[in-house]
Amino acid sequence: MTDVNLGLYFLSEVVGTGMLVLLGCGVVANVALTKTKGNSGGFLMVNWGWGLAVFAGVLVSAYSGAQLNPAVSLGLLLAGKIVIMQFLVAIAAQLVGAILGAILCWAAYRQHFDAEEDPAAKLGVFSTGPAIRSYGANLVTEIIGTFVLVFVIFAFADYGDIEVGTPGGLGPLTAIPVALLVVGIGASLGGPTGYAINPARDLGPRIAHAILPIKGKGSSDWGYAWVPVVGPLIGGAIAAGVASFALNLS
Amino acid sequence: MTDVNLGLYFLSEVVGTGMLVLLGCGVVANVALTKTKGNSGGFLMVNWGWGLAVFAGVLVSAYSGAQLNPAVSLGLLLAGKIVIMQFLVAIAAQLVGAILGAILCWAAYRQHFDAEEDPAAKLGVFSTGPAIRSYGANLVTEIIGTFVLVFVIFAFADYGDIEVGTPGGLGPLTAIPVALLVVGIGASLGGPTGYAINPARDLGPRIAHAILPIKGKGSSDWGYAWVPVVGPLIGGAIAAGVASFALNLS
Amino acid sequence: MTDVNLGLYFLSEVVGTGMLVLLGCGVVANVALTKTKGNSGGFLMVNWGWGLAVFAGVLVSAYSGAQLNPAVSLGLLLAGKIVIMQFLVAIAAQLVGAILGAILCWAAYRQHFDAEEDPAAKLGVFSTGPAIRSYGANLVTEIIGTFVLVFVIFAFADYGDIEVGTPGGLGPLTAIPVALLVVGIGASLGGPTGYAINPARDLGPRIAHAILPIKGKGSSDWGYAWVPVVGPLIGGAIAAGVASFALNLS
Amino acid sequence: MTDVNLGLYFLSEVVGTGMLVLLGCGVVANVALTKTKGNSGGFLMVNWGWGLAVFAGVLVSAYSGAQLNPAVSLGLLLAGKIVIMQFLVAIAAQLVGAILGAILCWAAYRQHFDAEEDPAAKLGVFSTGPAIRSYGANLVTEIIGTFVLVFVIFAFADYGDIEVGTPGGLGPLTAIPVALLVVGIGASLGGPTGYAINPARDLGPRIAHAILPIKGKGSSDWGYAWVPVVGPLIGGAIAAGVASFALNLS
Repeated sequence: MTDVNLGLYFLSEVVGTGMLVLLGCGVVANVALTKTKGNSGGFLMVNWGWGLAVFAGVLVSAYSGAQLNPAVSLGLLLAGKIVIMQFLVAIAAQLVGAILGAILCWAAYRQHFDAEEDPAAKLGVFSTGPAIRSYGANLVTEIIGTFVLVFVIFAFADYGDIEVGTPGGLGPLTAIPVALLVVGIGASLGGPTGYAINPARDLGPRIAHAILPIKGKGSSDWGYAWVPVVGPLIGGAIAAGVASFALNLS
Repeated sequence: MTDVNLGLYFLSEVVGTGMLVLLGCGVVANVALTKTKGNSGGFLMVNWGWGLAVFAGVLVSAYSGAQLNPAVSLGLLLAGKIVIMQFLVAIAAQLVGAILGAILCWAAYRQHFDAEEDPAAKLGVFSTGPAIRSYGANLVTEIIGTFVLVFVIFAFADYGDIEVGTPGGLGPLTAIPVALLVVGIGASLGGPTGYAINPARDLGPRIAHAILPIKGKGSSDWGYAWVPVVGPLIGGAIAAGVASFALNLS
Repeated sequence: MTDVNLGLYFLSEVVGTGMLVLLGCGVVANVALTKTKGNSGGFLMVNWGWGLAVFAGVLVSAYSGAQLNPAVSLGLLLAGKIVIMQFLVAIAAQLVGAILGAILCWAAYRQHFDAEEDPAAKLGVFSTGPAIRSYGANLVTEIIGTFVLVFVIFAFADYGDIEVGTPGGLGPLTAIPVALLVVGIGASLGGPTGYAINPARDLGPRIAHAILPIKGKGSSDWGYAWVPVVGPLIGGAIAAGVASFALNLS
Repeated sequence: MTDVNLGLYFLSEVVGTGMLVLLGCGVVANVALTKTKGNSGGFLMVNWGWGLAVFAGVLVSAYSGAQLNPAVSLGLLLAGKIVIMQFLVAIAAQLVGAILGAILCWAAYRQHFDAEEDPAAKLGVFSTGPAIRSYGANLVTEIIGTFVLVFVIFAFADYGDIEVGTPGGLGPLTAIPVALLVVGIGASLGGPTGYAINPARDLGPRIAHAILPIKGKGSSDWGYAWVPVVGPLIGGAIAAGVASFALNLS
């Protein structure tokens, strides 16, 4: 880890995750909030919006390997690709970035938040919620979705020798595959819970929702908040384990 | 075939086909089952979902060349690219993977299967069925669709010298073209039968439908089950034959 | 031209254009004919279907440079990239391939043609027609659309020294860009006339419509048939001319 | 700058921006004007149309590095990648190209402009307008959207040593990433203002709207015209500044 500049590493994850959440929450705002031009644009538009949000986030986060997701970082830690200090810096940065991205999204859609009368629609821009509330079942769905994300990423991304100092990882060349993968996971496994599949993507915006002076906002639904944090971490850990024998990772 | 580890070969096809069916059946669940976030998302969303399901499946199935489909494996056998033992191991693995993928899909959408009242919608998540039932016509449609799939794959995939031991084949570099091809076939030829174009993709989930304790499920429609098995095998065989003179395959 | 095998050259254009028309007409059948699974799938689905139809056609037509379109071939002739014999063989093959592709599409959707009551919907699967009939305006739209197609293709495809015998041209590596380009042209310029932008794509299926025993079919609308032939040829010729000074073609 | 031919540089930006605006305004015409085949095609179709409009524009504008946008050119000027003369030639060319592209779009959709009764729909084909008019908030949205555009482009495009004469820049190889980026920005940040994110794209067509003899046209809404000019320029400038420390640009 000698050569890693942890300040740049932190900055890289803040910028990448901020970009991811700005564009990701943005597409939900466009589809869900009243009077927008993309109102009722459909779930496929949401899928493309989130996929391309990841695409943009990966492109601006090359230094740290564009982890952008604590579930990915946990998988990398368990696979021995990053050390504990890199893991801690990364997830702290991801949470900070996600909060900042959500604030920027709110700024971009300020008039539409003000005009929207449904508090649930406002929270839905920030954080995920289940279509049918059942913590156990919702957890299973998030575990499966994140397993797919991390397992497939491990199959095509080359994380090199990150543990000895070279950041490498999910750089620009893999931005298109990871974007398509996220479009696919959203379309296929996003139906029950809205596919958080990333603890920072869900918790960061939820914190932003709680602290921002959003007109007429309702509850931040903290009762559900643990599901999109715990589920993805379990899914990422399982993916790292299965990948170690099913993908011939060295 | 000296160098092929048939255990890894089997595992590779199980993992790849399982991923394919999990995501593929998942997008149908998202569009068709009640109360999902992607409900009524449209046929184009189904097309992208299946295309990107193949994309993810190809990425995690490099060892065996990501055949993922008995019709493709039959084409490779007829073209002399794999030997009979590889063919048999591949199609057994594809069927096992497809059953496992369908079970995972059911787990991810468990609440929505319970809430859905239409048995036909439930079966539709697992297996294909014709828009207008007519076995002969349905068979023709499946033959044409699978012919396109296998013929075009043969045009751009490099299967190297698989018969002498190197798996090679439809690896990660061809994942994007094959995904786009499947999106296209679905949009263009999926209208009459729902484009099985893959015996394992249809039969495996149908078996899963028959054995899983799905609440309020109806018939598994075994009367139609032979069409999406026989049609794709005929289509794949024709494709291998036509490709041998129309694509200058060596 | 010494090294070109005109038989293979002809076969390559037949196969590529047949694939293009099978999938292209297929997506219209899926969206427009009654009782299909993609019924009312929307114009964006039609755009993706046609774009990926071109994608598949290009992939299976490497020997002849995947021209697939008399307007492209005319541009190549005017730019000195092919000789008159290659041009004549190519456009004959394109017309034959388009007729065959349309027949295959009819076979794949046979039940839905029988069930469809509107003769205009049936013709619409085969050939284009104007949203507002006005031959002059329709011609202008087809000229502009085809100009964009051929001009942009000339900007990124490397046609090498086709005139001295190497086929080269729009091979597999450019299949994705050309597919995206056709999606874009359809979305942007397909509104008034349904974007033939290819004389063979329109005339071939119209001939198939005239000769096939389609149940309850109406007129083949020969009065309009010259527009999607003449317009694209003019557009392709203008594109070749403008490209010669605006794109620094050597 | 010794080796740059400013005439070709100008021509390259005219052609590229003209292509961009022809296809970009075209998709809005297809979705918004009466009796088109893509009428009511949805916002995702608009997003793909604009993204692929940029794609086509980039492909035909290699000589000047496919800037196509005064906000991008301003970012390049501030980053020292182009000199003031290149900047001035580029933005003049972009404005000219945008006017020409809008005129061609009008020609392609002539019948539909005549048949359309809503003057606002006609203006909407040419220029952007806010969903909820509030100059301050609209400006913020345009700043954020353009910041994302220019910042991410700076992360993946290699602008080489443009200031000493080699044009380089956003050439064909980066056409797909920039297209996907524009699709994403549109889906995610296009809801409040319709995402001009490019002063030439908005001002050029507005001028065309003002001067063309469009049947039954209404106001060109000059009161709003400064927002999509000033906002993108501010966003581009901020992006260049942030990129200088957050992306390790040399």
